[in-house]
Amino acid sequence: MKKNLKLRAVVSPTPAIIAAAYDENGKADACTLAFYAPTSHKPPCLTIAINATAKRKTLKSILHSGAFTIGYPSVEQIAEADWIGMASGYEHDKIAEVGWSVTKAEMIDAPVINELKLTIECKVVKTVTIGSHTQITGEVVNIQADDSILDERGRYSLEKLKPIIYDEENWRYLAVGDGAARAFNSGLVFKKEG
Amino acid sequence: MKKNLKLRAVVSPTPAIIAAAYDENGKADACTLAFYAPTSHKPPCLTIAINATAKRKTLKSILHSGAFTIGYPSVEQIAEADWIGMASGYEHDKIAEVGWSVTKAEMIDAPVINELKLTIECKVVKTVTIGSHTQITGEVVNIQADDSILDERGRYSLEKLKPIIYDEENWRYLAVGDGAARAFNSGLVFKKEG
Repeated sequence: MKKNLKLRAVVSPTPAIIAAAYDENGKADACTLAFYAPTSHKPPCLTIAINATAKRKTLKSILHSGAFTIGYPSVEQIAEADWIGMASGYEHDKIAEVGWSVTKAEMIDAPVINELKLTIECKVVKTVTIGSHTQITGEVVNIQADDSILDERGRYSLEKLKPIIYDEENWRYLAVGDGAARAFNSGLVFKKEG
Repeated sequence: MKKNLKLRAVVSPTPAIIAAAYDENGKADACTLAFYAPTSHKPPCLTIAINATAKRKTLKSILHSGAFTIGYPSVEQIAEADWIGMASGYEHDKIAEVGWSVTKAEMIDAPVINELKLTIECKVVKTVTIGSHTQITGEVVNIQADDSILDERGRYSLEKLKPIIYDEENWRYLAVGDGAARAFNSGLVFKKEG
């Protein structure tokens, strides 16, 4: 039987990522978020959404600098990612507090968090505010990976990256689970022979 | 050591969901996609992106009807979801081919796939084309869940829903893994006592 649930943004399961940008003084800001999706193949783009009704320093920094990075924390970095998602950049130097450091990105004026093993460098190409959040679409201009997470073909491996899945229904973080099936293949059982 | 990877939309890990809409003849279309994110809390909104340079019938149907649903397939429905992501709605009645059926949504003019255990009903509030894809933001106007996936508090349970995580790096589908830590809690180890 179907039941109607209370209206809300459904945020389970979504990857937890860390957005980072420089503020107007060149200081690195970061915030953990789950409002994130790839949104274009050509050119490659991604979109993040950040609450515009709350005091979010990273949103201000991204809009000011026109550039940001997206980094993937691993399940071993949950405590760090959680703190960067909880504390305000106006009151805390969150990156230093968790013991992390940054390097300027290669292609844009935004910080790369050195301890994250996969980082995407983005130039802002579009912003639009809908509801409580500002959606920021960035064009991917570089992808940096630590070679420890690459497989023999040079692709990053989820088994080595160990990204975090956020489950807002239960306020918890999860790991990615086991492989279940091949894509663009499993569905061929429904293809009728011509 | 950091290495630069080939530029692309990074689509791992992202949930695989099924968007559905009625075409201009009232026939239900659906496509599986991973370009999806929650994008606003108040009002609750989500954004999907569909390739506008390819012949995507579901995109046309959503733009025509101004409404769509998002349903979560489970890992037991991977073959069905994979076929709905592979075949074209112009050539195939994909929903029937996988043995599924639809009911009109309660709040909008869009189909709910009966076999999916969590469905979000959305009204289109904004569309913007960036790069190869059209981003469609929908306001959540209803959430329907099968009571088999609800926990004792009436929330849906990821352990019961068993959603699919898509890994484009390796063209495969994965399950959500084990719980790793509590959110808005694990990070408190970095909070200095005042």
